[in-house]
Amino acid sequence: MTYLDHAATTPMRPRAVAVMSEALSRIGNASSLHTSGRRARRAVEESREDIADALGARPSEVVFTAGGTESDNLAVKGIYWARRAADPARRRILASAVEHHAVLDAVEWLVEHEGAEVTWLEADSYGRVRPEVLEAALAEAPDEVALATVMWANNEVGTVNPIAELAAVADRHGVPLHTDAVQAIETLPVDFAASGVAALTMTGHKVGGPYGVGVLVLSRDVECTPVLHGGGQEREVRSGTLDTPGVMGLACAVREAVESRQAHAPQLAKLRDELINGVRAAVPDVVLNGDPGRDAIGGGPSRLPGNAHFTFPGCEGDSLLMLLDAKGIECSTGSACTAGVSEPSHVLLAMGADPRAARGSLRFSLGHTSTAADVEALTEVIGPVVRRARNAGLAGLRRSSAGSRTAATEV
Amino acid sequence: MTYLDHAATTPMRPRAVAVMSEALSRIGNASSLHTSGRRARRAVEESREDIADALGARPSEVVFTAGGTESDNLAVKGIYWARRAADPARRRILASAVEHHAVLDAVEWLVEHEGAEVTWLEADSYGRVRPEVLEAALAEAPDEVALATVMWANNEVGTVNPIAELAAVADRHGVPLHTDAVQAIETLPVDFAASGVAALTMTGHKVGGPYGVGVLVLSRDVECTPVLHGGGQEREVRSGTLDTPGVMGLACAVREAVESRQAHAPQLAKLRDELINGVRAAVPDVVLNGDPGRDAIGGGPSRLPGNAHFTFPGCEGDSLLMLLDAKGIECSTGSACTAGVSEPSHVLLAMGADPRAARGSLRFSLGHTSTAADVEALTEVIGPVVRRARNAGLAGLRRSSAGSRTAATEV
Repeated sequence: MTYLDHAATTPMRPRAVAVMSEALSRIGNASSLHTSGRRARRAVEESREDIADALGARPSEVVFTAGGTESDNLAVKGIYWARRAADPARRRILASAVEHHAVLDAVEWLVEHEGAEVTWLEADSYGRVRPEVLEAALAEAPDEVALATVMWANNEVGTVNPIAELAAVADRHGVPLHTDAVQAIETLPVDFAASGVAALTMTGHKVGGPYGVGVLVLSRDVECTPVLHGGGQEREVRSGTLDTPGVMGLACAVREAVESRQAHAPQLAKLRDELINGVRAAVPDVVLNGDPGRDAIGGGPSRLPGNAHFTFPGCEGDSLLMLLDAKGIECSTGSACTAGVSEPSHVLLAMGADPRAARGSLRFSLGHTSTAADVEALTEVIGPVVRRARNAGLAGLRRSSAGSRTAATEV
Repeated sequence: MTYLDHAATTPMRPRAVAVMSEALSRIGNASSLHTSGRRARRAVEESREDIADALGARPSEVVFTAGGTESDNLAVKGIYWARRAADPARRRILASAVEHHAVLDAVEWLVEHEGAEVTWLEADSYGRVRPEVLEAALAEAPDEVALATVMWANNEVGTVNPIAELAAVADRHGVPLHTDAVQAIETLPVDFAASGVAALTMTGHKVGGPYGVGVLVLSRDVECTPVLHGGGQEREVRSGTLDTPGVMGLACAVREAVESRQAHAPQLAKLRDELINGVRAAVPDVVLNGDPGRDAIGGGPSRLPGNAHFTFPGCEGDSLLMLLDAKGIECSTGSACTAGVSEPSHVLLAMGADPRAARGSLRFSLGHTSTAADVEALTEVIGPVVRRARNAGLAGLRRSSAGSRTAATEV
């Protein structure tokens, strides 16, 4: 099996599996006052220190959550609620149009349900939010803005945002910037303090840690209303029994990911470039989406080293995905797929892509277990697979234009 | 080490550890469409069926969450928001005064922040919510009630509520009843469909499963607004990447807990009664709090079989806890302890206890690994420990009345 879907989830690092598996058999609620409880608490706090150290944050800024979705919801809703409570005029959220659904849908819910207003920050044709776009949105009425949220790197097309510059713009207007850095931790030089952001989302299963545990790095200066109320375990900002084994597995993975990053990222970029060249050689009219990755942003590459995102003209992404899967190659369309109805990706649409073309896209994402053999496996089959998908597409088109209109309305 | 704090967290069952540990090394996001993703999805859906089967629910009623706190928040806030959206008059929440903080604090936040009103349902001296109390609260203005929430069994004093009767009362008035059944699953005959509740909270680490994963069993007829927005993974009610290994570990633990329940619960009750008798013999003036456990409720005992909760007159619970811990015996005060300031338990206060006496309480909770040796270890030392705590308390009292007033204001 050739796994080219590391952006969806990446294998757990063996050391993290070992640490976590061993911890599963140990007893002790980290909130209990007895010896077992204090031992669990110590493990949690050591993990917190390790994660803070790896991310350039203070331990007290690390708030454990159940993962990226919860961290995004907590940042967006929590900062919105707290800022609006302190000043009822602050009801506007500035959010990039290419955010993950955990941010987009949280923002939309606040608009529909909690009296928020939103300004969608335009992305350029690479999917990047430029500082001048944020500046213009803020300049209109900075005193009415609750928060801004722009992801560190895009999960679909891999484009890296100039987060430090964006944070500086937000800071000049006294507005906290949240960033979803879920995709960035493994391969980009993420430093919370140096970036100047107010809040940063990360999650375990994208760095070789476990599912079900993540972090919101939250500056001590930023008020945040809880999304989950209860025992107040995490700074009274997040409640819920601490998942000691998960937290330990997460810390192990983050430490390993960050320690190996400097060596790993360029290797991955090289492998990714081989993948891009191989696919281009096999399918000459393929289109690479997102930043070409030749520039530097914030001391790192301008495109995620593990990301290759293509549009294959005349193809359906879902068909390509299934044809590749049948050949043992696993990847993603990178588009939202709900209840079997595939829609063109909101990210590609925001980048100005044609909706029909956007549906013919695939994301290949490499990670810490990827090898040259994985790339070869793909480049060997991608040519024939695309030809087959195109023939099937043409046949479908003929059937469609001869008969019902349903195929057309699906686009 | 003698672990008598199973109500805080109970050891993971070895089979659940094995299932989960093995799954940690397997790749595949359950939302991915390729082979690895579909395999993860199949594991999640089989787990869902097992859990539904064990709890008397339909698989589509099982919503995976990150644990009890999230399930409680989702039920209370989600049903409140959805019912109020459907009918703005439905703003009242009926909640028992002895709920877990994950319910209490969620309710209080809705009152302070989201325009809710609350009626606190009185508990009797055992900590039980009587159906006539719910009936009286509902009868006032049933059309203004969004939901009612009453826990299946109390986490501190172990009192079991007549959930089916309470659900029938709520149902007669067209009001959904949520129940926090976190403490009930392992030892009480919990059957979602038979109980008639609209929503039921459970969590992994209280049944021998992992931390960080739980369930809200949610009737298909009950609308519920999400607390966490995003990918919509769970029925569009809960978003977040599914924790496949955690879900598998949870299913294994629930299955084992429910299959062994009929044999396990009476054994546990016998052990618990030996514990109570032993403590009473050593400390004649000790007071057992909660229901004596001699009656039956809903086909099960009227007190959690693993629970023994005492007040030791003239003692501080925290001192007792630490003295016992020094002798290798781990238990809990069962009261909220925030930032080192111990407050008397809201449960005991709601039961009519004197605040000063309430602070001298300890909870001993038995579980699936408990043995007669654990009980003996406690009953051997509890007499001397209580005597020592009383002497220390008297010494403190003398110091206090001679000097500052701070000791008195703490009570």
